[in-house]
Amino acid sequence: MLLSLLCPESGGLRHVESSALILLPLTLKKPLAVPHRHMFGPGPSNVPPRILDAGASPVIGHMHPEIFEIMNDIKSGIQYMFQTRNSMTLAVSGTGHTAMECAIFNAVEPGDSVLAAVNGIWGERAAEMAERIGARVNTIVAPPGGFFTNAELEQALSKHRPVLFFLAHGESSTGVLHPLDGIGQLCHKYNCLFLVDSVASMGGTPLYMDQQGIDILYTGSQKVLNAPPGTAPISFSERACQKIFNRRTKPVSFFLDLSWLANYWGCDGKPSRVYHHTGPVTAFYSLRESLAVLVEEGLEKSWERHEKVAEYFHAGLESMGLKLFVKEKKARLPTVTTIVAPHGYDWKEITTYIMKTHNLEISGGLGPSVGLVLRVGLMGCNSSKANVDMVLAALKDALKHCHKSKV
Amino acid sequence: MLLSLLCPESGGLRHVESSALILLPLTLKKPLAVPHRHMFGPGPSNVPPRILDAGASPVIGHMHPEIFEIMNDIKSGIQYMFQTRNSMTLAVSGTGHTAMECAIFNAVEPGDSVLAAVNGIWGERAAEMAERIGARVNTIVAPPGGFFTNAELEQALSKHRPVLFFLAHGESSTGVLHPLDGIGQLCHKYNCLFLVDSVASMGGTPLYMDQQGIDILYTGSQKVLNAPPGTAPISFSERACQKIFNRRTKPVSFFLDLSWLANYWGCDGKPSRVYHHTGPVTAFYSLRESLAVLVEEGLEKSWERHEKVAEYFHAGLESMGLKLFVKEKKARLPTVTTIVAPHGYDWKEITTYIMKTHNLEISGGLGPSVGLVLRVGLMGCNSSKANVDMVLAALKDALKHCHKSKV
Repeated sequence: MLLSLLCPESGGLRHVESSALILLPLTLKKPLAVPHRHMFGPGPSNVPPRILDAGASPVIGHMHPEIFEIMNDIKSGIQYMFQTRNSMTLAVSGTGHTAMECAIFNAVEPGDSVLAAVNGIWGERAAEMAERIGARVNTIVAPPGGFFTNAELEQALSKHRPVLFFLAHGESSTGVLHPLDGIGQLCHKYNCLFLVDSVASMGGTPLYMDQQGIDILYTGSQKVLNAPPGTAPISFSERACQKIFNRRTKPVSFFLDLSWLANYWGCDGKPSRVYHHTGPVTAFYSLRESLAVLVEEGLEKSWERHEKVAEYFHAGLESMGLKLFVKEKKARLPTVTTIVAPHGYDWKEITTYIMKTHNLEISGGLGPSVGLVLRVGLMGCNSSKANVDMVLAALKDALKHCHKSKV
Repeated sequence: MLLSLLCPESGGLRHVESSALILLPLTLKKPLAVPHRHMFGPGPSNVPPRILDAGASPVIGHMHPEIFEIMNDIKSGIQYMFQTRNSMTLAVSGTGHTAMECAIFNAVEPGDSVLAAVNGIWGERAAEMAERIGARVNTIVAPPGGFFTNAELEQALSKHRPVLFFLAHGESSTGVLHPLDGIGQLCHKYNCLFLVDSVASMGGTPLYMDQQGIDILYTGSQKVLNAPPGTAPISFSERACQKIFNRRTKPVSFFLDLSWLANYWGCDGKPSRVYHHTGPVTAFYSLRESLAVLVEEGLEKSWERHEKVAEYFHAGLESMGLKLFVKEKKARLPTVTTIVAPHGYDWKEITTYIMKTHNLEISGGLGPSVGLVLRVGLMGCNSSKANVDMVLAALKDALKHCHKSKV
């Protein structure tokens, strides 16, 4: 059978075998259906209607003056959230992994020595990214749930002499909040840049980029900020820029090349901005709105609220007889809580039961913590005592109804 | 002056100099304001409320069964739009540049020979991306507005023996629609993969990925599809997968590594999906809705409509005495029209006047076409005779009111 199809290349119709035609998919004739759900896993968290609505504002150009103003607002919001005066502050058009690659691709050249602190999945991924671009990568490893003393870190810095040291502030796979004080100073003593992943912690616990000597810091939109996933705030210190803008080689990625991004975000002091990529303008609207929400509450209040809600949650868990995975209280992430997987239960049955019965997401472990923990994220607007009560009730119900082996 | 701030790391309060504190930005206290605007530049194009609303649906998890179903629908929609049966079909979490890097990062290893057809900005950028990852890059160059014959391409393929040949189907910087027939076959004759950028053309003019022997094809969400920028459909042939999954080295990017993306999108036949990155779920909702709109109209009808509207537009421009930049009628992109910058005028004054007076975006050139052209994009829902009339009226008005030098 032959079908006639309009084809401008041949100036009119052309005949193709119908077998060569891919017919339209009937599945797309069904309307989009998305359930409402309590998003209490390690992210993405729930997005309030106000932020969703902002993202449904009309699309304007990625180079229009109005979007530059919105991007400037975002930049100010990030500087506030990160507690930094860095002019090299912007949002990457992608999720946390994109920001991680942006940091590593720009700061590291082939052959450079990189040190990654591995106490969960994020250190592993940072190490892998640096390896892929030809860095000499060393790791310092702690078991899941553990963290590093400054003395241990200094030893590793002095041994490996890296140009970049990676640390996850909030290790969402294990629930560890890593202490930061003094590490930036140690890195600088060894002429090393200090790169911090704060995807899971930012906005929910104190962090002072400038004061703590952090050279590159990034987070994601979909955690405490309660914006949809798709943008990732990032900031670079003067010291980081010094290395980045004096590279011998170009970064492997044009899309993530900081010299281009800096211009697009008006961070390079040049009078005009040149087309780099088409910024995800509606995602920028949502990100701006999420920063506005944070500004309305105030950063200290947000830190305090997450802290108090976490304490209330942790006390509730312990009073149920559940154990917290992170032993040291001061190293517990207030945004993502790891609970020792209850003895005698299949963790997967618990999370599935809670999703099915309570329409509520909590999750199992990730990477090195798989099978060891349950993870509960209460971030941004989700961080409230009412939600803690909801999670505790769901957990109690699950432990009652899920199968328990005789142990 | 000292301020007290809650700091869990020291177990309570700590004192910091207030000078170290970045105060909250007042600019974020103003509500988000986004103008409505006729987006008739080369993209992003207007997004209908239906697609914006889909993107404001509640956030669910990037690994929930419902999002996998939505991703499967997207995959089917892309297969239809691309006219391909490739199972390796998905959407990259990023804009067109991310898809371009995804194609090149996966298909090319350091030292590989790459050939890029440069007749505008996109070939230049593809060449730059390949260079950054250590490929040996050659180009075949045509002046802006020009294109290549199959004989010229065969000569270049035979000379440079590339593993990958890049061609822009829709060269949005110059308005050229490149003929595709026979090129895939030529590439395969020389054991080369055929990579096609269809960001500006896809959905607006015929293209048959399988039939035309295209090995890697990508587009963006923000052109004919009328979704917000932020996702990029891409597909890989069996032949492309053969090379990609038998690489000696890992691709430089973990985020864009096809073996990870293939698993996340359920393209690798494995029984379960492993966490790779947090997919931009709300952008997936919009993309699905935009594909549903295309399915409702039907691909052939969409091609036909763009073709007819472009003919009507081009006739209107010529009757005004304006000249089309692309001489050969068959090589004119129906989605993005390039008009020779009117003699005696400052093109920038024209676009600024039209934006100010008509709330309508048309743009100047890009890369090699800067100063040479005006560009008008009428894509997806924007491709209508009513919009053509609006643009023609705006252009007439601008030519009347903008300053014309005595020439």
